[in-house]
Amino acid sequence: MEVEVGQDVLAKNDQAAQENKKLLAEKEVFAIDLVGSPGCGKTSLLEKLLKNLGRKLNLAVIEGDLYTSKDADRIEGYGSKIIQINTKGACHLEALSIKEVLEDLDLNQLDGLIIENVGNLVCPASFALGTDMTITVLSVPEGNDKPLKYPALFEQSSAVVINKIDLLDQTNFSLEEVQKDLTALQPELKLFPLSCSSEEGLKEFYNYLKTMVEKND
Amino acid sequence: MEVEVGQDVLAKNDQAAQENKKLLAEKEVFAIDLVGSPGCGKTSLLEKLLKNLGRKLNLAVIEGDLYTSKDADRIEGYGSKIIQINTKGACHLEALSIKEVLEDLDLNQLDGLIIENVGNLVCPASFALGTDMTITVLSVPEGNDKPLKYPALFEQSSAVVINKIDLLDQTNFSLEEVQKDLTALQPELKLFPLSCSSEEGLKEFYNYLKTMVEKND
Repeated sequence: MEVEVGQDVLAKNDQAAQENKKLLAEKEVFAIDLVGSPGCGKTSLLEKLLKNLGRKLNLAVIEGDLYTSKDADRIEGYGSKIIQINTKGACHLEALSIKEVLEDLDLNQLDGLIIENVGNLVCPASFALGTDMTITVLSVPEGNDKPLKYPALFEQSSAVVINKIDLLDQTNFSLEEVQKDLTALQPELKLFPLSCSSEEGLKEFYNYLKTMVEKND
Repeated sequence: MEVEVGQDVLAKNDQAAQENKKLLAEKEVFAIDLVGSPGCGKTSLLEKLLKNLGRKLNLAVIEGDLYTSKDADRIEGYGSKIIQINTKGACHLEALSIKEVLEDLDLNQLDGLIIENVGNLVCPASFALGTDMTITVLSVPEGNDKPLKYPALFEQSSAVVINKIDLLDQTNFSLEEVQKDLTALQPELKLFPLSCSSEEGLKEFYNYLKTMVEKND
């Protein structure tokens, strides 16, 4: 009984995700699902992206959060449209909520849409949103064992950001190990070691995203 | 329909949790649900606890993880019994799984049981396991905004460990802010700022746990 309804929920979500994907493709909007644990630095990365790429590309952001608008507040003022979705306690965004708020965006004017999911390294993997790619953020203090412990999101990702590399010396995180494990999960995965604090590695990530968004037109 | 079945799942979990609680109380085993984001340092803290308190108290550990036994492997060899539960992708432990493995423990011999939940700051809040207390681990690199962004587990906790305080100087984490936010959520909450690397603050936490476990006899 649980399983049947669980599958029903997932099937409904997948259908809405397909509709989102179709609409975004028609409008030539490149969409990214940005996921990762609480505190891995998704919002810090978004701040950097909007500040840098927001001048060159027309971007919008959908901010997923349980109750607050703390993240949306942080990324206001960079000129990009921000829409807040509060999940009221739910541990992930769903495609139907995205579908509803897509109506509030002028998709004809947009190049790219970044959806910051709820901080969670497990649950968003089961709920496609209809984006063109998933980017998972893993931060150095979390440890390099996380891809094999929580494989689903990493397997679905087109790129993985290794954030907070300014803390490499203070931890036992091994970039070599994480690269080996991620390649084993998914050989095509792009890896971006960077730091939103020291700004090391950010340029390579901006260039990658800019190319992906522009290729979409 | 979804909600009804959801409530049914939760009701079944709550019933199993009540049974676990009753059994553990009869056997005078003090049980702790240890929760927090992936990489916050739950397993490092467990290693320290088993090494220190394991000589004075008869402890057992139930390790929750999606697929691997990486955490269980890390805490082997300290003399405490370790039981692994793999959730096969599920984002939290459930009371029924705990109930099953309690049969494999010699509860008459135990003083305390520590259950390391799956790394997740959201979902375990909805699934009581029947423990005497929840302890949430929040690590400094995650940021001090997390209690208000993800309040449910913090509200349910008897104690919060602020781990990785050796990284305070490298981040903008404010102990003052986090203390203020946690007190607003729950005035009775005990706060333990500590570092499993530098070992600062660990002694206070050992003493607190030892007192709680011994009070239970």
